[in-house]
Amino acid sequence: MKTDIEIAQEATPLNITEIAHNEGIDDKYIEQYGTDKAKISYNLLKDLKDKPDGKLVLVTAITPTPAGEGKTTTSVGLADGLHKIGKTVAAALREPSLGPVFGVKGGAAGGGYAQVVPMEEINLHFTGDFHAIGAANNLLAAMIDNHIFQGNALRIDPKRITWKRVVDMNDRQLRNVINGLGKRTDGRVREDGFDITVASEIMAIFCLATDIHDLKERLSKMIIGYNVDNEPVTAGDLHAQGAMAALLKDALKPNLVQTLEHTPAFIHGGPFANIAHGCNSVLATKLALKLNDYAVTEAGFGADLGAEKFCDIKCRMTGLKPDAVVIVATVRALKHHGGVAKAELNTPNLEALEKGLPNLLQHVENVTKVFGLPAVVAINRFPFDSEEELKLIEDKCKELGVNVCLSEVWGKGGDGGVELAKEVVRLCEDTANNHFQFAYDLDESIEDKVKDIVTKIYRGAGVTFTAEAKKQIQRLTELGFDKMPICMAKTQFSFSDNKNLTGAPRDFKITIREVKVSAGAGFLVAKTGDIMTMPGLPKVPAAENIDVDDEGKITGLF
Amino acid sequence: MKTDIEIAQEATPLNITEIAHNEGIDDKYIEQYGTDKAKISYNLLKDLKDKPDGKLVLVTAITPTPAGEGKTTTSVGLADGLHKIGKTVAAALREPSLGPVFGVKGGAAGGGYAQVVPMEEINLHFTGDFHAIGAANNLLAAMIDNHIFQGNALRIDPKRITWKRVVDMNDRQLRNVINGLGKRTDGRVREDGFDITVASEIMAIFCLATDIHDLKERLSKMIIGYNVDNEPVTAGDLHAQGAMAALLKDALKPNLVQTLEHTPAFIHGGPFANIAHGCNSVLATKLALKLNDYAVTEAGFGADLGAEKFCDIKCRMTGLKPDAVVIVATVRALKHHGGVAKAELNTPNLEALEKGLPNLLQHVENVTKVFGLPAVVAINRFPFDSEEELKLIEDKCKELGVNVCLSEVWGKGGDGGVELAKEVVRLCEDTANNHFQFAYDLDESIEDKVKDIVTKIYRGAGVTFTAEAKKQIQRLTELGFDKMPICMAKTQFSFSDNKNLTGAPRDFKITIREVKVSAGAGFLVAKTGDIMTMPGLPKVPAAENIDVDDEGKITGLF
Repeated sequence: MKTDIEIAQEATPLNITEIAHNEGIDDKYIEQYGTDKAKISYNLLKDLKDKPDGKLVLVTAITPTPAGEGKTTTSVGLADGLHKIGKTVAAALREPSLGPVFGVKGGAAGGGYAQVVPMEEINLHFTGDFHAIGAANNLLAAMIDNHIFQGNALRIDPKRITWKRVVDMNDRQLRNVINGLGKRTDGRVREDGFDITVASEIMAIFCLATDIHDLKERLSKMIIGYNVDNEPVTAGDLHAQGAMAALLKDALKPNLVQTLEHTPAFIHGGPFANIAHGCNSVLATKLALKLNDYAVTEAGFGADLGAEKFCDIKCRMTGLKPDAVVIVATVRALKHHGGVAKAELNTPNLEALEKGLPNLLQHVENVTKVFGLPAVVAINRFPFDSEEELKLIEDKCKELGVNVCLSEVWGKGGDGGVELAKEVVRLCEDTANNHFQFAYDLDESIEDKVKDIVTKIYRGAGVTFTAEAKKQIQRLTELGFDKMPICMAKTQFSFSDNKNLTGAPRDFKITIREVKVSAGAGFLVAKTGDIMTMPGLPKVPAAENIDVDDEGKITGLF
Repeated sequence: MKTDIEIAQEATPLNITEIAHNEGIDDKYIEQYGTDKAKISYNLLKDLKDKPDGKLVLVTAITPTPAGEGKTTTSVGLADGLHKIGKTVAAALREPSLGPVFGVKGGAAGGGYAQVVPMEEINLHFTGDFHAIGAANNLLAAMIDNHIFQGNALRIDPKRITWKRVVDMNDRQLRNVINGLGKRTDGRVREDGFDITVASEIMAIFCLATDIHDLKERLSKMIIGYNVDNEPVTAGDLHAQGAMAALLKDALKPNLVQTLEHTPAFIHGGPFANIAHGCNSVLATKLALKLNDYAVTEAGFGADLGAEKFCDIKCRMTGLKPDAVVIVATVRALKHHGGVAKAELNTPNLEALEKGLPNLLQHVENVTKVFGLPAVVAINRFPFDSEEELKLIEDKCKELGVNVCLSEVWGKGGDGGVELAKEVVRLCEDTANNHFQFAYDLDESIEDKVKDIVTKIYRGAGVTFTAEAKKQIQRLTELGFDKMPICMAKTQFSFSDNKNLTGAPRDFKITIREVKVSAGAGFLVAKTGDIMTMPGLPKVPAAENIDVDDEGKITGLF
């Protein structure tokens, strides 16, 4: 069996300008990065503002498991399938983070015959967007400490600085540091820490900004910490937003690449799906919509996190509205939710599969009932899946009136996505069944908004706020940040805040331990526990097996 | 008077493919980055290997002063001048570092009418080379600490780790840190520190590597520290070179841009000129030579550091040989060497000017007598220079038989460089007067090599090695690293190791406090004191005045 990188390297992509021309993009908007990547000017969006949008299809998934679900693979294959049945279509996807590539993760550009190319470059530096975000983040950090060093006119409290430096690497050694050591001229000693680049608030802002002006506004609102009177200090107070925006001005242009079948794909931005909203940039989604009949996009983790935030944060802030939702499930993952250990997942087990189904059904209900959106389950076929298992899912779904399709895009590319594509078209055209609504109102109190998410989406019995969280909520309300949407930061592996509760648990309570504001992104982050914002490398990092030959061909990136 | 960025933004550059085609570069070697930047495949060098080289012109300078000398400006203007008189020519220059742009420095892409464009992009991310170097550097750092965390099979001594993390930012807060704090799973506590990206050994290697194979060899030889038996541990021992090279494979392709007058310029790599050799990449220099009659390149700081290392390190390692050397001087800088304070430099002062001339003459002698190369002094004209002052330099040079030319490229572009270009052509064609030799032999002991540089180039009375340095020299000799060239790390502001001794001091001794090996780069670094490898931001960082408008146009970058 060929690896993903082998399949990708055998492809013969079209010159990216041809892809762009097929999208109707004029040369003046295209900035080539080599022959197979391009950046598209945001002026194109301005110039297309009167053109009607295409249909927006969101791809989400059941609760993630170690078995993998294949959301990006399904998104790519669905786009190829829509392409095959004669629709104009583009995918709008997240950029992979560099650090995890060297850990255990490997690539994140789809899989099998449903990939975007050039996969090596997309997985490594791509067009440098994340480096730009890292530089902007670290410029602000240097300006904060320099401000304190140079006399601290803003009276920043060094113990209350919340802004961290970032590096796009899995580097646990940097999670907690003391810096500013050495001589008097070497800064001021304080406790600090690093996050991975994708966890920067700038990443979230980058993905929500609608233009450079909006980007700068949001950057200037970011809170870097608090002064000795516990009042917020912002990046704007440090006059940092202009230089940060200058560092981000090229990054902000959506990247255009293609699938193995020459379907256009805008790959742009990739914020965390716990402390942030986990969706690609608004600019990429809007561009895909303006230029095509269909735009296929994805959201991070399971539908309880990614799809909820896609609707309640991204759509609410920007006026986007999904026309249909695809919920990806796999036989293996459902068996895991039914209690099967990872090593046993390739063995057929109808009983465990049936036991795992409630996880899928809860996600379906959330999408259709809570958000009022037409949905279809896509069963992402893996080589070891038995016909009996596939049939069981299909039968159960049909029994409950849930739309369902087998997706074979991993093995067959767009041909394996035609059935799903046709179903998606049917759902999008049946506009009478779209009753899109949010899970909560912005006017509710912070506590009530969290409760709405927990009870309606997670089906928890209630929410406990720690004393610390209550204090933070009070302070954030005083500061006028209470009318923002909520960004839940909880484990992706369960509807609950306990990662071991797979399936569709009930009677659990969610504990909110911390509430903070991402004032530039424009949402409140409610944390249920320690959220890992700086991964580490495993015993044998994938990096040890990555190589490049004299012609620049990369191996070992799977 | 227009600022550099205003002049640059008024330019109408040709499409970079046109510049490349004018250079005779086939489309298959060109990777466009937008319309005004391109990367050129290193395969082009292989395919051109039988083509004879053009003439190599090195631009260096007198000892730097706060007044500025204009080496890059002169290099650009000279290339434009050569272009004007009908030669095919390309400049090969260093990439600016991102961090200092936000400090006091502003841009570093030439000045006035002798600039390379797009100056904003060259000064910011350009094509991402430095981000790639930073990522490779920090991947290795993460792998080192992960190795220790995962059991430390190589028995790395945490107190003897020499590899630092980097960030391309002026951030004094990171000079000295303690990391690995927190829980057991958050690494192992140790003392550490960050350098600015350009100080990474990978930057030096990147600029000396002749192809990907050589790059990997050098990367694998880098010493990251020592084990508990004080034996070197290398990046190769950690199996990191393949993944690092994969991160660097695109960066290694030279970048092509153009001057305001459409002369091609390869801008690629930019190592420190104290702890490293301070020259652009060998690949860029070789490409410029293969494709043109003339290649104009530069070396960092004054000729005592930059030109010495260009000859003794870069040329020696790669077989390059300069055909002529241009030594840049300014009226203001020479007056500074004659004892005038910065605030008074615009006032005519013939006496101080004459007192400063010995600095220039020593550099000229070093180039012509020590290295045996034809040389010309280029007086880089500034607006406030008086005719009497300019004439004094010219007269004194002529009196001593030193070739001299007025360069007016800052104000007039290539037209202001025609006279200098003609003189350079004359020198290059007079091959009988080129007796190129090195300042020392590799077979000498480490001490003797250092002594040769100090006595021949700096004209010091001798060298003192501290006890610590002697011990290091002994250990490095035992380890077999004694046959490498020397990379002197001393202040750029004086021939001596005391930055206040301007002019041409005598009777001083140089103290070597530390000798370390850059085993991948292939040289020994002899340090005369603390060398700053992480700058800080000033009271009011330039960043506070940088901005970008809705169309992506940057302001405040001067």
